[in-house]
Amino acid sequence: MPVVGMVGGGQLARMTAAAAVGLGATFRVLSESENESAALVTHDVTVGSHLSLPDIAAFAATCDVITFDHEHVPGVILSQLESDGVLVRPGSGALQYTQDKLAMRERLSALGIPCPRFTPVASIADVEAFAGGTWPVVLKAISGGYDGKGVWVCESTEEAEDVLAHGIPLLAEEFVPFRRELAALVARSPSGQGAAYPVVQTVQVDGICREVIAPAPGLNPDVAVEAEAMALRIAAELGVTGLLAVELFETDHGGLLVNELAMRPHNSGHWTIEGARTSQFEQHLRAVLDLPLGSCAPPEGTFTVMANLLGGTDPDVFDRYIHVMAADPEVKVHFYGKEVRVGRKIGHVTIVGGPDDDVEAVRDRARRAASFLRWGTEDGD
Amino acid sequence: MPVVGMVGGGQLARMTAAAAVGLGATFRVLSESENESAALVTHDVTVGSHLSLPDIAAFAATCDVITFDHEHVPGVILSQLESDGVLVRPGSGALQYTQDKLAMRERLSALGIPCPRFTPVASIADVEAFAGGTWPVVLKAISGGYDGKGVWVCESTEEAEDVLAHGIPLLAEEFVPFRRELAALVARSPSGQGAAYPVVQTVQVDGICREVIAPAPGLNPDVAVEAEAMALRIAAELGVTGLLAVELFETDHGGLLVNELAMRPHNSGHWTIEGARTSQFEQHLRAVLDLPLGSCAPPEGTFTVMANLLGGTDPDVFDRYIHVMAADPEVKVHFYGKEVRVGRKIGHVTIVGGPDDDVEAVRDRARRAASFLRWGTEDGD
Repeated sequence: MPVVGMVGGGQLARMTAAAAVGLGATFRVLSESENESAALVTHDVTVGSHLSLPDIAAFAATCDVITFDHEHVPGVILSQLESDGVLVRPGSGALQYTQDKLAMRERLSALGIPCPRFTPVASIADVEAFAGGTWPVVLKAISGGYDGKGVWVCESTEEAEDVLAHGIPLLAEEFVPFRRELAALVARSPSGQGAAYPVVQTVQVDGICREVIAPAPGLNPDVAVEAEAMALRIAAELGVTGLLAVELFETDHGGLLVNELAMRPHNSGHWTIEGARTSQFEQHLRAVLDLPLGSCAPPEGTFTVMANLLGGTDPDVFDRYIHVMAADPEVKVHFYGKEVRVGRKIGHVTIVGGPDDDVEAVRDRARRAASFLRWGTEDGD
Repeated sequence: MPVVGMVGGGQLARMTAAAAVGLGATFRVLSESENESAALVTHDVTVGSHLSLPDIAAFAATCDVITFDHEHVPGVILSQLESDGVLVRPGSGALQYTQDKLAMRERLSALGIPCPRFTPVASIADVEAFAGGTWPVVLKAISGGYDGKGVWVCESTEEAEDVLAHGIPLLAEEFVPFRRELAALVARSPSGQGAAYPVVQTVQVDGICREVIAPAPGLNPDVAVEAEAMALRIAAELGVTGLLAVELFETDHGGLLVNELAMRPHNSGHWTIEGARTSQFEQHLRAVLDLPLGSCAPPEGTFTVMANLLGGTDPDVFDRYIHVMAADPEVKVHFYGKEVRVGRKIGHVTIVGGPDDDVEAVRDRARRAASFLRWGTEDGD
């Protein structure tokens, strides 16, 4: 069997490890420590840094193909690995657009993909010129943000000055008054095959994904097709191999704007473990191995709700399993084995609904389960 | 998180390891070698023998509870572990009935559970007396058989003499002319909670399970309920903790007879990974951890076909993935990482059908996928 190496030991690698068990592919992880989420459950763990070319090169030498749990391997390392003949999927040419948000915006705009209005900014004068007197303005770190980190919604010149004081390269974007957030998840193989999951609704709180409803309830079918086609086109144009998640705003007028890109398994796709015929984790493995892609469809008549589990104040989540599992035998609990810290993503719960289930009722069940696991009460957040 | 240790490193432990990833429980395996199916994918592998009390005791000392991938740990070892305070689930009191088929038949008969007519036999005179001139007669090793090994269908005195010549303790059973074989899979927790999966049809060839259809097509609902209730009752009466699979004959008259028992994840339950809300592997973990059991139901309107993948003559199964996955994107392939030998169980494929799918058509698709993976042609067996 081929050997797939994943750089990064977080929960995405952990869930990919579980998918590799079924597929039969040999799976290795390059993890910062022995205690990371994926390192706790993967047979072949190499401890090393994703910022070290020697570490990654030595790791890659034991693998047929390498892929990623995150987007933080520097582009120069990726390029060097490719020059040295390592199969890197997705490749540096694609990953640059997840590492440089300005390059991403410029490339997507050149392709005619709808994005929020944007410009690079280096001074408060730049920000004020972009704002043109209309606030808020969104400032984003060009590199390195995630889960709301590196994104600031500025209501005034003063707030923008505070962000500029960080001294990091920034992008200004218009603040989009959206109806809701959506995500389009697709896979693309090196052979060029594409496959699209149903478009989902994501619910973010303070920049962190809290809930995913798949498919997005009540979404105009034309908009759904447009989102899937857009994601498949981006994957093809950017040369993505593996998964591409396109985070989208559905605007107040029902249009779509691209918010962010990720080229890896994505929080908006965790629902696929139970809710789709092929989980995003198996799909990513199939794509990076250049195997034919699996069906992205949910079993007919089903929908799925996923709620993220964030850390609370009591670290003993397992003690709270008994209540949640007794209260709702259809809840599927996923725990990532991570140290519990307040607000940290430490797991998720999934419920698959059927033709007779009400979406709002299933959302409520998922929220109550996640709340209980977090706080020991179903009425938390 | 609690630590579950599984004794035995086969594919059942391998799939349980994958389920443990989601549940967040720490999972360890005691494996005969580093190369067994589960040892290839489990983070915490101890190499040791399931026939050695010191090996198992040392392993158990690192676990909160131990359970099993097979039934071959000797009863005296199980009892000693229990005396030493190890949580053994299922316990020796239950496991004895999987290790001693005569004890199983006697106990079930005492409970009024329908079984084939049986008697222990020590001589050809015993066999002939049991046969009363009616052949075939089934001879079974009282201990140690699996996958058709240890079972002989004897058509004559001469054939029975050949079996007696093995010199092992034997049981004679009537040959049951059955309509088909069924399996009832249930879970029982130490707290006494029971949960029953839908009764499935199993198709055996030469004593090896080749195909499972879940739920069993066209099964009389009263018979289904009877089978589930029977399995739950056996689990309770025998004090099973964890899974109990009851292999059944549906007789030509539509009645049920118990064929075999297994107290662990079972081949007849592999379909639950994709086809039921809670997989048998997670269910087994939940049961041995005394967590509330999960829903055994398939998503509404679905059914599932599983076909076992047996080894063929060309060991490179992965080379044949591309055809199978391209031909049928809904096929889910499971490969166990075992050395390929002709006729050995090395994986399985699963397809979930929906309300518009025909059971026979889905069976055909699953058989073709398994055949291609085995032989490189869809028309093999």
